[in-house]
Amino acid sequence: MIVDFEHGGSEYNLTESDLRIVAVAGGVGGAKLALGLQEVVAPGNLSVIVNTGDDFEHWGLSICPDLDTVTYNLAGINNPEMGWGRAEETFGALTTMSQLGAEEWFRIGDRDLALHLRRTEWLRQGVSLTEVTERLRRSLGVPSDILPMSDQPVRTLVHTEDGDMPFQHYFVRCRCEPAVIDLTFVGAEQARPTHAALAALAEADLIVFCPSNPYLSIDPVLSIPHLRRAISNAKAPKVAVTPIVGGKAIKGPAAKMMREMSVPINPATVANRYQDLLTGFVLDQQDADWRAEIDMPVLVTDTMMTSLEVKRSLAREIITFAEQLQAARFSEHFFA
Amino acid sequence: MIVDFEHGGSEYNLTESDLRIVAVAGGVGGAKLALGLQEVVAPGNLSVIVNTGDDFEHWGLSICPDLDTVTYNLAGINNPEMGWGRAEETFGALTTMSQLGAEEWFRIGDRDLALHLRRTEWLRQGVSLTEVTERLRRSLGVPSDILPMSDQPVRTLVHTEDGDMPFQHYFVRCRCEPAVIDLTFVGAEQARPTHAALAALAEADLIVFCPSNPYLSIDPVLSIPHLRRAISNAKAPKVAVTPIVGGKAIKGPAAKMMREMSVPINPATVANRYQDLLTGFVLDQQDADWRAEIDMPVLVTDTMMTSLEVKRSLAREIITFAEQLQAARFSEHFFA
Repeated sequence: MIVDFEHGGSEYNLTESDLRIVAVAGGVGGAKLALGLQEVVAPGNLSVIVNTGDDFEHWGLSICPDLDTVTYNLAGINNPEMGWGRAEETFGALTTMSQLGAEEWFRIGDRDLALHLRRTEWLRQGVSLTEVTERLRRSLGVPSDILPMSDQPVRTLVHTEDGDMPFQHYFVRCRCEPAVIDLTFVGAEQARPTHAALAALAEADLIVFCPSNPYLSIDPVLSIPHLRRAISNAKAPKVAVTPIVGGKAIKGPAAKMMREMSVPINPATVANRYQDLLTGFVLDQQDADWRAEIDMPVLVTDTMMTSLEVKRSLAREIITFAEQLQAARFSEHFFA
Repeated sequence: MIVDFEHGGSEYNLTESDLRIVAVAGGVGGAKLALGLQEVVAPGNLSVIVNTGDDFEHWGLSICPDLDTVTYNLAGINNPEMGWGRAEETFGALTTMSQLGAEEWFRIGDRDLALHLRRTEWLRQGVSLTEVTERLRRSLGVPSDILPMSDQPVRTLVHTEDGDMPFQHYFVRCRCEPAVIDLTFVGAEQARPTHAALAALAEADLIVFCPSNPYLSIDPVLSIPHLRRAISNAKAPKVAVTPIVGGKAIKGPAAKMMREMSVPINPATVANRYQDLLTGFVLDQQDADWRAEIDMPVLVTDTMMTSLEVKRSLAREIITFAEQLQAARFSEHFFA
């Protein structure tokens, strides 16, 4: 069955609804859509399950880049130019760390540093990463739940033609330059999903895979067996938004990695990768022609989230699309 | 024997000499004289043994306030107005820590924070505090050795009328307001002096007790039994500079504490407290009349280190005074 929904408005007032959404996200691209979703649902009705495969220890601190990017975006204090860190940031500590011989390739601002310090102190006290993240998002006034994919460590190891390297060494220190052969999510088999993430999935009316890097951001989440199964078993419709537009990644190394791993650089590659999980897929209007290659309902719309208004309207359209998918599924079942 | 030396210049070019000095110091007052001494001896010929009784854990970091004050002063990057921390500092991390619910009474600047982070990371790796302090002073271009009084923890506990409190709670959080009954240096009996401090004492031509708080800065150093004995056994003349001038402490709570502990607030109280260790004592010119109450050779001069030039000239006078003490001791011995 191929059902296409062209983008069109629903007059349903979503902010007054009880609609509960779970978003699965990595860093920048995921955080943008998460913000759009947060803007259109009732406060507290969005939960974002976030990749922690990028987490690492640096300067003796526990750093969770994707959790922080999502938190800063949902708090409205992110740096939109850089794509990481906070707006209105200073770098006094970094300058001194460099003078004191510390590694400086991972640029931590002074305000950002405070959050890493706070998290590190709590983790050392035995507080779970989920509880730490909850305290941080509350302090920063974020109304949505931000949920680490696991409280146990899962670490993305990048196998490149220059050797194996921990994620941040590949991503930041080597600027994604080494050609990627494959990825391993170390610890994923043993990691458990959290009660918070399982509860959010159980209550979800809609699950959205944000336009994050499929290999670096979505795959780590799905690499945790019980989390993948919980997503798969959830009754809610599951919609993914394409991270590939016009043959390129909107941001980051997704397209470069696809070329290196010899997979076609187009949205159908991503859609088909998650086909057994998904109810629908969102294509960018530039890529409308690819809908024929995708064997599930497709929404074609503007996915380039260049403003808060576009983030909001994309979020609204995804919700409407999901409602239509549910209605279609219901009538299909009812009239079968 | 009472021998008085009025202040007067020596033409001996001290910067070219091989004179080796050990200074015993706490925070601000000690750091000022240490800088004066560093300015007038050959590079590398000053070692400062520093109180670590004020050290504490804060925000999950190992903080050594007196070591840092001495380091920043000897590096020329201290904040002269505040008396703590660095000049040209920002407070982005502190602002955020406060927003994230962390305690903010101990004000850590962003550049200062970097030093605490670096130290904490190294200590966690098993590097000794002496080696950590050595790395930090080298990175900051300090030519003198800065030596913790011990690599084992010694913690100053302040017994007050409001109860017992760790030093920084008394000093910073409670702004020295509670009346002091007594002090305990927890861990001092078990603490060992470091090889670096013992070696410096063995090589010293002069040992200077800086005008630091006797109860809070000098006593902790002397509370380590083997360190006190090494100072006592050293052949070098030992000269203390008064921390009390005109019935007041130049900075800090020394005079207030003396009143609370019912000891007379004057330089003779301090001189007599350390009489069995000292060869000579330096009185401020405002207090010349107290020389009669001090049963050892006394130098009377300007001890108010209001400029770098005064710091240098005080340092030069202390050295000349010590040389005169040595000469007197030698002739005493020779003609006995």
